[in-house]
Amino acid sequence: MVTLGPNQYGKAEVRLLRVNRSSLNHSSAGHELRDLSVSVALSGELTASHLTGDNSAVLTTDAQKNTVFAFAAEHGVAEIEDFALLLAEHFVASQEAISVARVSIEEYAWERLGDHSFARSAREVRTTTVIYDTARHDTGEPLVVSGLKDLILLNSAGSEFWGFAKDRYTTLAETTDRILATAVNAQWRHDQQDGSAQVSWGESYATARDLLMSAFAQTRSYSLQQTLYAMGTRVIEGLPDIAEIRLSLPNKHHFEVDLSPFGMENKGEVFYASDRPYGLIEGTVLRDGAEAELGGPA
Amino acid sequence: MVTLGPNQYGKAEVRLLRVNRSSLNHSSAGHELRDLSVSVALSGELTASHLTGDNSAVLTTDAQKNTVFAFAAEHGVAEIEDFALLLAEHFVASQEAISVARVSIEEYAWERLGDHSFARSAREVRTTTVIYDTARHDTGEPLVVSGLKDLILLNSAGSEFWGFAKDRYTTLAETTDRILATAVNAQWRHDQQDGSAQVSWGESYATARDLLMSAFAQTRSYSLQQTLYAMGTRVIEGLPDIAEIRLSLPNKHHFEVDLSPFGMENKGEVFYASDRPYGLIEGTVLRDGAEAELGGPA
Amino acid sequence: MVTLGPNQYGKAEVRLLRVNRSSLNHSSAGHELRDLSVSVALSGELTASHLTGDNSAVLTTDAQKNTVFAFAAEHGVAEIEDFALLLAEHFVASQEAISVARVSIEEYAWERLGDHSFARSAREVRTTTVIYDTARHDTGEPLVVSGLKDLILLNSAGSEFWGFAKDRYTTLAETTDRILATAVNAQWRHDQQDGSAQVSWGESYATARDLLMSAFAQTRSYSLQQTLYAMGTRVIEGLPDIAEIRLSLPNKHHFEVDLSPFGMENKGEVFYASDRPYGLIEGTVLRDGAEAELGGPA
Amino acid sequence: MVTLGPNQYGKAEVRLLRVNRSSLNHSSAGHELRDLSVSVALSGELTASHLTGDNSAVLTTDAQKNTVFAFAAEHGVAEIEDFALLLAEHFVASQEAISVARVSIEEYAWERLGDHSFARSAREVRTTTVIYDTARHDTGEPLVVSGLKDLILLNSAGSEFWGFAKDRYTTLAETTDRILATAVNAQWRHDQQDGSAQVSWGESYATARDLLMSAFAQTRSYSLQQTLYAMGTRVIEGLPDIAEIRLSLPNKHHFEVDLSPFGMENKGEVFYASDRPYGLIEGTVLRDGAEAELGGPA
Repeated sequence: MVTLGPNQYGKAEVRLLRVNRSSLNHSSAGHELRDLSVSVALSGELTASHLTGDNSAVLTTDAQKNTVFAFAAEHGVAEIEDFALLLAEHFVASQEAISVARVSIEEYAWERLGDHSFARSAREVRTTTVIYDTARHDTGEPLVVSGLKDLILLNSAGSEFWGFAKDRYTTLAETTDRILATAVNAQWRHDQQDGSAQVSWGESYATARDLLMSAFAQTRSYSLQQTLYAMGTRVIEGLPDIAEIRLSLPNKHHFEVDLSPFGMENKGEVFYASDRPYGLIEGTVLRDGAEAELGGPA
Repeated sequence: MVTLGPNQYGKAEVRLLRVNRSSLNHSSAGHELRDLSVSVALSGELTASHLTGDNSAVLTTDAQKNTVFAFAAEHGVAEIEDFALLLAEHFVASQEAISVARVSIEEYAWERLGDHSFARSAREVRTTTVIYDTARHDTGEPLVVSGLKDLILLNSAGSEFWGFAKDRYTTLAETTDRILATAVNAQWRHDQQDGSAQVSWGESYATARDLLMSAFAQTRSYSLQQTLYAMGTRVIEGLPDIAEIRLSLPNKHHFEVDLSPFGMENKGEVFYASDRPYGLIEGTVLRDGAEAELGGPA
Repeated sequence: MVTLGPNQYGKAEVRLLRVNRSSLNHSSAGHELRDLSVSVALSGELTASHLTGDNSAVLTTDAQKNTVFAFAAEHGVAEIEDFALLLAEHFVASQEAISVARVSIEEYAWERLGDHSFARSAREVRTTTVIYDTARHDTGEPLVVSGLKDLILLNSAGSEFWGFAKDRYTTLAETTDRILATAVNAQWRHDQQDGSAQVSWGESYATARDLLMSAFAQTRSYSLQQTLYAMGTRVIEGLPDIAEIRLSLPNKHHFEVDLSPFGMENKGEVFYASDRPYGLIEGTVLRDGAEAELGGPA
Repeated sequence: MVTLGPNQYGKAEVRLLRVNRSSLNHSSAGHELRDLSVSVALSGELTASHLTGDNSAVLTTDAQKNTVFAFAAEHGVAEIEDFALLLAEHFVASQEAISVARVSIEEYAWERLGDHSFARSAREVRTTTVIYDTARHDTGEPLVVSGLKDLILLNSAGSEFWGFAKDRYTTLAETTDRILATAVNAQWRHDQQDGSAQVSWGESYATARDLLMSAFAQTRSYSLQQTLYAMGTRVIEGLPDIAEIRLSLPNKHHFEVDLSPFGMENKGEVFYASDRPYGLIEGTVLRDGAEAELGGPA
């Protein structure tokens, strides 16, 4: 009467700090840091574990955690995409029952204060998700998604919103000058057809981040939807190996305060930031011919 | 060179408190409360808004928010599934460009202290998501998903974990007695074939919640996977209209403290609760013949 | 040119789960749980550690953590006040340099589902802070403070707010019917003069919690200040050993939605809950003759 | 039988965004932003409000919020200390019953991307608290405290911890090489004797922040206590108008992972970051002759 559907399991949020003490390849004499949160999710033929409690196919989540630490020691952590690929391939290769490994990593940036001293910098978090699926990727190419979250941007000019549909419940005034603010959450998928080996993940990330910011800053906005599309387009156009980018942009409302009760005029200078509710604009931008693989509504 | 892929937009986390002052249908003379967070996401033919900034098809997220409040006033809030259905059908019906409306609601429970006095009760949050998709649901049946999150459960006996795969990185000791704790996050999909009109959402929710708790408490566990399957099975077997249930169960580790350095023995009585990392077990349980529609890995 | 002022150090948020397997004193055959977060702060003659890095007087925070676990094993955890007293006295007695120990504990409640199964219950957190100060407490009586936080209460009737001062910036309308909601954060100090040995901390806590809730529910409110005072008064009057109670009550605003743009009237039934800003009302209520020792503005 | 003790009330977390569009004093043609969270707490003769519900002396928290916005419009926001002083003096001067005003402000930094475009920068939050107390400050000098929080720092070398006290519960190994990481939470009090008018709050803040970071980076640490004292000393010595600084430094533990089960050696390169429990080191550093006014244990 009952069957097991899609399932996966793994260790989430393994907080790894990797210190590189040798720094052989760098002019700096100092240490280097990689500060990560690594999450692993495995799936495959795990019916027995669910139905009978037979765990013989289960690589423990504790061992997954240990593997993250051991691999960090043995291989170091280059870019997070590299480290996720290494781990994902290992989990699929080493366990007969496991056919899909999904490794997601968040990286927290640090700024150097001295040879061995650092300050957490940048509010945004760099992310990656690698999916190694033996069934799906006949070519052996894992899916590599890079991204960022919590990049908070604001335009204090150049944002309009008017000409929208009006129904019985529409009271919003049209405006040609509003604050536009968001916390960018973006994932972009690398096209592996041309060979991922050439991609320099770190440079690619820095470029994508800059393109997102410059598109946000330079687009005269008639809606956050339009800004989203401009941001996605800029990344697709600027980075040839990216086939798809998905953006989730909360509209962090800043409302102009009504000062008229105090006999004052608000010349677009005093706003209150509202926590909830907020608009949420989500969309995917695709290179021509690419298919949407990053989810979202049909 | 670039095209727009899947997209949606809407107002998120509209915090609505609905007080029912009449309570005509109730023996109690007092008020009744519904405390909700309502999120709306609409999609359809919105290319113009993204590409040219033409907003003529955009029902503002502000109007969506207003609609939530106005509908709460006009129709009241019965069960959250009813309210989500009402809103979703309205948004699709009223806007030409909108073909899909997704309405998600969280409900926070209150316990009565007096006729007009209440205390927030229960840690868990009741949830629903209704998807009204004109294209997909030829029969006009919207997808109705009910659920809960943050239901924290713990077994201090009856949980084992052994017989698992061992690789180079496996150091975990086998055990026949461990703490098993989780925060249940569950969504279950109602089968609309038999007509949703008959479902009493409130009773169904209470039953599903009880079944989840009793299955957790009564299952001798050989893994959290097995407990997950037992919980899902119990709900499918106990509620004929539920076709599918998806569970996401963090393994909230409680590790036995090593007291031997102090010349003491830990007889399974002193544990420390660890925040991160944690195991994360996710899976879907299906009624025979049902298809998995609630996501998750393939 | 520079001197060291007040200082303390310790281990914070030791997450302890104590399972009582024997339950000898109880009719239930099942286990019992105590789920705590324990924080220790020690002070005394620690100048050398600060100035020269001489740590010879420093009991490590790691040892403090170990002590929490070892004491839980050896002595069990009766009420959190008892456990905090035990720990505070130990730290002061065992370390020459330490003259003051402050032990704070949060307790999370669980509801029984079965002999060995539990669900987290009650949103509020029970708290205690014990301060054992060799200098101040000549009598050897430590300061014992009990409390709770995150007890969320709401009155949907019986709350007015009018007759307030008006200045140039006052726009708030007077009302004789508003929602009054808060998250109670309270600490109350036990008067040790009569001997703390007699106090049954668990019963005292249950009584104080009930008094706070009933005072909130039964007071016709003309301001949250007045409700605060009524709540404090009820506790002082109902529990003879309590000399002082300090309450911090955020005014969790629920604003009536203006439905007039939609041709509808809001009959006090539709509100939106606002996150920020919020009012914050703080005050101490004292038994006649008692002095305020729990802080707050002069 | 019962009396009212210390009390205060006010509006907390007013989220103000002030855009300066003219930028007359700046070479940049662009806008300038001030992004603040302002909290007000007033106290004085408010017994009637508590005891009888007579609100005639109560300036509503809503009016306090309005005042924040109106003052931002009328006076602009220079440095947060200036704005807090302006508000605190206003509240005490304008309301007969109010004798003490405490205004606390958090400021969130933004980095310029373009003339009207900004990105949230820096993880740390700049803070101030101004207390204007008519009774206490005979000279009319309000207390001005500046500070910061969430400045996350890490040393990957130069930190030792040994020679500490050992008791029965001490198991920690001594080390001459550990990670030292913290999230700096600091408040420093400006000495108003010399006239606060001369203090350039912005420059003073930047200097204090730099001194805290450089002291952390440059101090060979034998304990976090010693680092705390070095940080405080550096600020007192570098900024003549600062009389007192209070630091609260969580010891964000990074533990070296034991790789020996995998036949590997950890050469101080692989650590896991632990959330809880954590050490918490708190202390005040004073200029000779200054008294501790910023709280903390005796």
